[in-house]
Amino acid sequence: MGDQSLVSNQTRDRLRGLARPVALGLGRLGLTPNALTVIGFLGTCVAAVAAAAQWWLAAGILVIAFGIFDMFDGALARATGTASRFGAFLDSTLDRTGESLVLAGAAVGCAAAGFTWGVALAGVAAAFASSVTYTRAKAESLGLRGDVGVAPRPERIVVLAVGLVLASMSWTVDNALLGAFARGSTWLAIALGLIAVLSAITVVQRIVHVRHQLGSEQ
Amino acid sequence: MGDQSLVSNQTRDRLRGLARPVALGLGRLGLTPNALTVIGFLGTCVAAVAAAAQWWLAAGILVIAFGIFDMFDGALARATGTASRFGAFLDSTLDRTGESLVLAGAAVGCAAAGFTWGVALAGVAAAFASSVTYTRAKAESLGLRGDVGVAPRPERIVVLAVGLVLASMSWTVDNALLGAFARGSTWLAIALGLIAVLSAITVVQRIVHVRHQLGSEQ
Repeated sequence: MGDQSLVSNQTRDRLRGLARPVALGLGRLGLTPNALTVIGFLGTCVAAVAAAAQWWLAAGILVIAFGIFDMFDGALARATGTASRFGAFLDSTLDRTGESLVLAGAAVGCAAAGFTWGVALAGVAAAFASSVTYTRAKAESLGLRGDVGVAPRPERIVVLAVGLVLASMSWTVDNALLGAFARGSTWLAIALGLIAVLSAITVVQRIVHVRHQLGSEQ
Repeated sequence: MGDQSLVSNQTRDRLRGLARPVALGLGRLGLTPNALTVIGFLGTCVAAVAAAAQWWLAAGILVIAFGIFDMFDGALARATGTASRFGAFLDSTLDRTGESLVLAGAAVGCAAAGFTWGVALAGVAAAFASSVTYTRAKAESLGLRGDVGVAPRPERIVVLAVGLVLASMSWTVDNALLGAFARGSTWLAIALGLIAVLSAITVVQRIVHVRHQLGSEQ
C-alpha cells in the first residue's frame, strides 16, 4: 500500500480486507512482504519497458496490475505482524522509483514515435511527481507534515494507467480508420500533462503547508 | 548550498568563505535567501529549456553557473542569521526539482535529435537521481541517517554539466570535420549513463544503510 489514500478511509479498509486473503496466500507460498515489494518493483520495470516499446495497452494494464499488487506487501506485513520501518522505507522508495521509470518509459516510447512534446510532458511529469513524494518525506524529516495536495501517488498512477490504455485504443482506431497516431498521442499527452500540472500544484501546496506549519519561525 | 558535500569539509569552509561576500552583496540589493533560492531555480529552468533546444553548451554553462549560485542562498542566510527550516526545505525541494527538469530537458533535446537511447538514459538517470535525494529525506523522516553513497547531488551536477558541455564541443567538431552527431551524443550518453548507474548504486547503498541502522528490528 502506498503512502497516500486514493479513497476514503472506509473504502480503504474494505480494500485492505479484500487484499488480506490474497496477501496471506502469497505469504503461504513463502514470500515475505519485502519480497512482494521487490516483485512489484520488477513488474513495474516491465511496464516501463512496455511503454518504451510503445506497447501502450500492455504498459497500462501492467501499471494497474502492479498498482493493485502494491497493496499486498503492506497487507501481508499487517496480517503476519511483520510490519517494519525498513519495509515501509523499501516500499515507498521502490514505489516512487518505479513510477519515475514508467514515465521514463513513456518518454522513450514517445521519442521512438517522433512525438517530442510527449517526451517533454513525460519529463516534466516525472520531475514534479517525484518532487511530490520528496516534499512529504522532507517535511516529515523536519518533524512536520507534508501529506496535503491534489495529486498523491495513487491518483497519479490511475491517470497514468488510463492515459496509457487510451493511447493504445486510439492508436488502434486511428490506424484502422484514419491511419494516424494523432489521437493516441493526444490521450497520452493529456494524461502526462495532467500529472505534470497536478503534481506541480501539489508541490506548491506542500511548500505552502510547510511554511504555514512553521508559522513565525521565519 | 545543497544537501551534500562534493569536497572535504575544509574546502567547503573555504568555498563558503568565498561565497559570503558575494552573498552579502546580493543581500544588500534587497534579496532574501529564499529569493536567491527561487532565482536559482528559475535559472536552472532556463538551463532545462536550453538543453531541450539542443543548445548543449549554454545548458552546460547554465548548470554550472546556477550550481555555484546555489551556494549563495545558504551563505546569505548564515551571514545574516536568517537560516531557517523553511529555507532549507525550499532549497532542497527546488534544487532537486531543477535537476530533474534539466534531465527532462536533455531527454527532449535527445528526442529532437532522434537520439532515442539518450532519452532512455536521461529518463533512467532522472528516476534514480531523484530517488537518491528521496531515500535520504525518507530515512531522516524515520529518525535515521541516509547521507551515504557515491553520487550525492553536487557530483551528479558536475557530471551532467561536463556531459552537456562535451556534447556541444564534439557536436561542433563533428559538424565541421565529420558531419555527424555521433560523438556529441556519445559524450552526453556517457554522462547520463554515469549518473544513472552511480545514482542506482547510491539508492542501493542507502537502502542497505537504513537496513543496517535498524539492525534486528526486522
